[in-house]
Amino acid sequence: MPLSVHQSSVAVFEVMLKAFSAILDKALAHAEAHKFDPTVYMTMRLRPDMLPFGRQVMIVCDNAKNVPSRLAGVQAPVFEDNETTLDQLKARIQRTLDYLETLDAKAIESGADREIVIPLGPNKMKMRGANYLLHFALPNFYFHLTTAYDILRYAGVDIGKRDFLGAVPGIAPA
Amino acid sequence: MPLSVHQSSVAVFEVMLKAFSAILDKALAHAEAHKFDPTVYMTMRLRPDMLPFGRQVMIVCDNAKNVPSRLAGVQAPVFEDNETTLDQLKARIQRTLDYLETLDAKAIESGADREIVIPLGPNKMKMRGANYLLHFALPNFYFHLTTAYDILRYAGVDIGKRDFLGAVPGIAPA
Repeated sequence: MPLSVHQSSVAVFEVMLKAFSAILDKALAHAEAHKFDPTVYMTMRLRPDMLPFGRQVMIVCDNAKNVPSRLAGVQAPVFEDNETTLDQLKARIQRTLDYLETLDAKAIESGADREIVIPLGPNKMKMRGANYLLHFALPNFYFHLTTAYDILRYAGVDIGKRDFLGAVPGIAPA
Repeated sequence: MPLSVHQSSVAVFEVMLKAFSAILDKALAHAEAHKFDPTVYMTMRLRPDMLPFGRQVMIVCDNAKNVPSRLAGVQAPVFEDNETTLDQLKARIQRTLDYLETLDAKAIESGADREIVIPLGPNKMKMRGANYLLHFALPNFYFHLTTAYDILRYAGVDIGKRDFLGAVPGIAPA
């Protein structure tokens, strides 16, 4: 049996976003324990020429809402990018999760064969939905998600891969 | 049309591993330009209690060879984890790519419904192949791959997301 496009996109984003929301709670608790203002995280980065933590998380949410929308052939809502706190990032994650529930699973399922057009800098690029999801969208999503995780890890937040993976569906003791 | 299990696993690993091999070339060139021994990268990490760069890349290769093997129901070869240089990591990536070519695509395709058993610390866990690939194997793969990338980024290597994504199959100007 092949893989469902919906499970490969929406279900993945849902699990990972919920896991990251819990990671944000750990980051907030870490700031409280060490008596620093958690908004400090928002501008942290590993290098000066790298996007800061806050932007990484905003992009993660954008990927999660835009990718299944493109696969379904519908227009995703535009988020304003005005978050300045971790609580606001958590709210953006929740808005993204709420939006994902409104998408038509059948339309997403037909997205593997759809021609997807995406802006890439000043240009537009196109590719088949399956290539878009597997070789562009998912690597992009994980790139920003892991980098956001790595920035928190670098900041000393006590998190590990189990936090990152979240609740793996269907896993059970063997 | 749903997604091919082979494209969602082997094809993804192939593109990302080739891209990372080119990133290792950039890391080697960076070391040469700045006159430091490139083996220094091998023990770099973002935190003391984090796996170092070399191990991150070894695990990336292990994921790439073990995941499709489990999906296909065959035993993957064991690599020795004795690499101490970036050239040896490049060779490990090539060995992984060579091995992926030997796998039976049809057997992998049937893997979505296979019950997969994996070691997790001292325990064993099981789950259906589709859940294993989408919610465990791919997040794990990207977790270590992006962290390896982030360590090089932190080390000052001039790389960007385009290097990370590599050659996206079927992408064309729109």
